[in-house]
Amino acid sequence: MDKIGFIGLGVMGRPMARNLIKAGYSMVVHDINREAVDELADEGAAPVSSAREVAEKSDVIITMLPDSPDVEAVVLGPEGVIEGVRSGQLFIDMSTIAPATALKVYQALQGKGVDALDAPVSGGDVGAKAGTLSIMVGGTDKAFKRAKSLFEVMGKNIVLIGEAGAGQVTKACNQVVVAITIQAVAEAMTLARKTGVDPAKVRDALLGGFAQSRILDLHGQRILDRNFEPGFRVRLHRKDLAIALQTGHEQSLPLPATAQAADMMDALLDQGKGDLDHSALALLVEELGGVEVDA
Amino acid sequence: MDKIGFIGLGVMGRPMARNLIKAGYSMVVHDINREAVDELADEGAAPVSSAREVAEKSDVIITMLPDSPDVEAVVLGPEGVIEGVRSGQLFIDMSTIAPATALKVYQALQGKGVDALDAPVSGGDVGAKAGTLSIMVGGTDKAFKRAKSLFEVMGKNIVLIGEAGAGQVTKACNQVVVAITIQAVAEAMTLARKTGVDPAKVRDALLGGFAQSRILDLHGQRILDRNFEPGFRVRLHRKDLAIALQTGHEQSLPLPATAQAADMMDALLDQGKGDLDHSALALLVEELGGVEVDA
Repeated sequence: MDKIGFIGLGVMGRPMARNLIKAGYSMVVHDINREAVDELADEGAAPVSSAREVAEKSDVIITMLPDSPDVEAVVLGPEGVIEGVRSGQLFIDMSTIAPATALKVYQALQGKGVDALDAPVSGGDVGAKAGTLSIMVGGTDKAFKRAKSLFEVMGKNIVLIGEAGAGQVTKACNQVVVAITIQAVAEAMTLARKTGVDPAKVRDALLGGFAQSRILDLHGQRILDRNFEPGFRVRLHRKDLAIALQTGHEQSLPLPATAQAADMMDALLDQGKGDLDHSALALLVEELGGVEVDA
Repeated sequence: MDKIGFIGLGVMGRPMARNLIKAGYSMVVHDINREAVDELADEGAAPVSSAREVAEKSDVIITMLPDSPDVEAVVLGPEGVIEGVRSGQLFIDMSTIAPATALKVYQALQGKGVDALDAPVSGGDVGAKAGTLSIMVGGTDKAFKRAKSLFEVMGKNIVLIGEAGAGQVTKACNQVVVAITIQAVAEAMTLARKTGVDPAKVRDALLGGFAQSRILDLHGQRILDRNFEPGFRVRLHRKDLAIALQTGHEQSLPLPATAQAADMMDALLDQGKGDLDHSALALLVEELGGVEVDA
């Protein structure tokens, strides 16, 4: 059984690492947050003090970090993963980062004989705790096969999409569709409200036809309930749209509706609403139309 | 059993009227297209030569016309429905028109003791033929109850949303969500293509999570198959977005993503692609990014 190194024990990483411990894996863990490390040490993981050391003491290294610069620093920076690796190891980044960064990390590790997968997830902390994350994977078939049993501990909808970077591209596509669909639902429900039509009945009717979506169902209900507790925070979704827009930009591909959704999220951030659930896009559409809704 | 008058025997109206004939209703029909009238006359409907005459010879009058000005002319114009009605009749407009026009027609008919419902549909000509249309209804509960058995011949997802105009508002909301969701799917799938990632695999992966929608499923598949035969034409969807935007404008409610989708459709119309299926929005996103796709 591969020995697992896990770096990044935040809201997502902690329950993911915990599920691996529960599944019987021998674990080495690291995070800059000492408290998170201590918690997992109590549950049986071996704490170490650098990413380099994680690489030295494990066979498969998993990272779950906030953003592209974090992954780049932890893997390629001083005391980073790359300083501790040996040929034959497998590196899996499960963070949501830029496809270009995923590719850079992949190539650097290949140079050391280490295979790498980009394997971002969706499903949030609820999915991380329940071990039901969707996992979108980019990399070689061989590496995917080696990682599969680990992924099955953490998720359930696990797909190898393509070569290195393809997992991150898929995640970016996912975040594009989710953001724009929330905007669609927000505009429709606000149009109903402002014309005096019950948005709950409109949502019900629309769920029966071509307008059906999981967003209309779940986020539509959130908007009706005025439940903007995250869920998935506006500020994190805005970061993910930055990745999609930057990737489009590198490819000279304009993404007009994505850019517009990002602008809407910027306005929410400016209002101090970045820690609300992303369904709070509806608050902005309502405000644009001078619609006041009783809680 | 109410005697039914049906005005507007186009792509939608013809199969809807036919289903009513098959269900055993005695029918009076009218259209400016003589051929359509003759076809239904052969099947047992009684043709008459004006909307006024339809009203005179029926108990329930149904209209299925292209746009707001058509409904206004047929109901309120010379030789129109209003010249032939008598108290106690029911008028049902199943066209997709502006809520403001629906309200105007409703009020004019109320003045003659005639109740009215706005009952736009979704499901296209396929749904019209199969009798499986979704029907979104605005009007009184009493009128809805009277119309229900007729609606059940033509559709299956039949909802009374609210007062007069509420059916049209719901249809506008539906068209807003569908247009913006197609744009979302088009941007995501084009981003995948341009970065060298298989859009079919991205679609599959996204269908398993929060990005799931009927549009991603059906229109996503159309985009993969390069199947832009309508379906629902860009030019008709653009007309429906004009209704949504005008309704928003009357209420001082900006609908930024709706406006953007309308702009994209205008560009398609300008390219002579107005008679393609609305999933052709993907063609424009691909063109913006210089993406060439083999058929």
